[in-house]
Amino acid sequence: MRNTMTRTECAAYLRERDGFLILNHRRPDGDAMGCAAALCRGLRTLGKRAFVLPNPETTERYLSLVEDLYPAPGFRPDTVVAVDLAEEGILQNNAGDWAGKVQLCIDHHPSNSGYARQGWVDPAAGACGELIYFLLLELGVEITPELAEPLYIAVTTDTGCFRYKNTSSQTLRVGAALLEAGAPIDLNRTLFMKKSRGRLLLESRMIAGLEFFQAGEADIAAVTLEDLRDCAVTEEDMEDIASVAGSVRGVELSVTLREVEAGSWKVSVRTGQYSNASLVCAEFGGGGHGMAAGCTVKGSLEEVREALKAAVGRHWHALPL
Amino acid sequence: MRNTMTRTECAAYLRERDGFLILNHRRPDGDAMGCAAALCRGLRTLGKRAFVLPNPETTERYLSLVEDLYPAPGFRPDTVVAVDLAEEGILQNNAGDWAGKVQLCIDHHPSNSGYARQGWVDPAAGACGELIYFLLLELGVEITPELAEPLYIAVTTDTGCFRYKNTSSQTLRVGAALLEAGAPIDLNRTLFMKKSRGRLLLESRMIAGLEFFQAGEADIAAVTLEDLRDCAVTEEDMEDIASVAGSVRGVELSVTLREVEAGSWKVSVRTGQYSNASLVCAEFGGGGHGMAAGCTVKGSLEEVREALKAAVGRHWHALPL
Repeated sequence: MRNTMTRTECAAYLRERDGFLILNHRRPDGDAMGCAAALCRGLRTLGKRAFVLPNPETTERYLSLVEDLYPAPGFRPDTVVAVDLAEEGILQNNAGDWAGKVQLCIDHHPSNSGYARQGWVDPAAGACGELIYFLLLELGVEITPELAEPLYIAVTTDTGCFRYKNTSSQTLRVGAALLEAGAPIDLNRTLFMKKSRGRLLLESRMIAGLEFFQAGEADIAAVTLEDLRDCAVTEEDMEDIASVAGSVRGVELSVTLREVEAGSWKVSVRTGQYSNASLVCAEFGGGGHGMAAGCTVKGSLEEVREALKAAVGRHWHALPL
Repeated sequence: MRNTMTRTECAAYLRERDGFLILNHRRPDGDAMGCAAALCRGLRTLGKRAFVLPNPETTERYLSLVEDLYPAPGFRPDTVVAVDLAEEGILQNNAGDWAGKVQLCIDHHPSNSGYARQGWVDPAAGACGELIYFLLLELGVEITPELAEPLYIAVTTDTGCFRYKNTSSQTLRVGAALLEAGAPIDLNRTLFMKKSRGRLLLESRMIAGLEFFQAGEADIAAVTLEDLRDCAVTEEDMEDIASVAGSVRGVELSVTLREVEAGSWKVSVRTGQYSNASLVCAEFGGGGHGMAAGCTVKGSLEEVREALKAAVGRHWHALPL
């Protein structure tokens, strides 16, 4: 960041300016969409002109948060703000023109590349939604149900409804305040307790076909083009599909193979305590970090499966005991 | 309750007495075991003699919470306390001698039958663990990590880690305080993000075999003796198995058939918004409440399946539109 801000400075900056255009990232999740919606609506209550740039990859689930916040044709922003965006390389795919021109960034990714002119980045926040919540409070914005709902979606989707390790006591306190401000608890049912028939069928096939190795401490799941067709899954259904193989008790490393075109496989490696996912994927020209990495491998399912198992085996000794 | 107490009165009562024996309920869950453990340990920090009566149905998962809190042989309690127990009919199955003799009850079930001499019952609490937490604060007990952990288990297991509808802002605030007091967030991984191989295999079979009816708004799942054998599931694996069929988006009523002996089926009916589960089960001599009811039906899988579908159909018109 050319200029790192505190929350108070960030609020002061927003208060001084107007004509906001809010951007987020490719394949936007609940945190990205919830933050954009809440910040936009919050700024409007202060009498500002603020809009959310339509994100072409917005899924149906989050569309209603933002569809009434799009700018009129010809709108020229004075202040371009990015939320939940770690680096410009993953800017939403219609925002390339704004690369290098983001004036303010509000984010919680430790890997934030500092692309913006100004920024408030707090990696202690489990969700970027926590930051937007505190920012709106600092701006004196009343948290109405219309603000509480997108913020609650932001906070819960990024933390698995308070289950993931990035959940802190702050996350829970923000969640409590948002319920009190009118976020409906029924959102949990829709977001976290129901899955589409296609997704459930696909998970069912993946589980039935799991192969265990390394004495049951590793497993490998495959999703073929045929599976995708048979189960009639949508792209939305595929969200976080790599977590399925890792949900088995006792499994410390899981591999998920997803056929993207005939004979070409997108590979995800996830580990819990252990930390060699990136070493495994580096063998195939991929990358990532210790606990989650990916690569693309060509070959038949059997070839790719055996190649991955062998690679995991080679790096198994790198695991702490 | 012969005498309904406030939290302050309940704390005063505990402060005045000694020689505590703590009971809970059949098939004890995380809330029952966590409350018993936390109350017992909290009373001990006040210099009291307090014990948890061993519950023969304690599962491996919760054993470590209580196994060092059992009374020595010959211990005669002065004060018998029940936690998370709605009625004496479901007292832990080695505590029949204490029926009619429970002196104090601390509970959150709206259906609490008032069996105890004294009681503090607060149905607004999502988990009984919330009540024990506030009670310990009122008693001036410092919430150490040894207390925070069982209380966190109590609060999260009864609310699906803050996902279920019984989660309130109070639940989230108690969760936040417990994390700050040293409850490890890693508990979520073990309790809510990992399932046994057997459980996952069984779920996979149930999903693959789901039958939809009533235009896709109802479904029916079956678990046969053969499935149980093939998947090698334990009783612990069967916890909340009736929720699987209800996890499909768009399904408002779900039926789960579990074969308990050849040709005899334990039936669970669950509904979301709709409320005729008990009407359906009443047809077969069963009962329950509007959103969750059960019965036992004899016959072949096909016969029972058709009988249930017909019964659901007969009561479908009773659903609000």
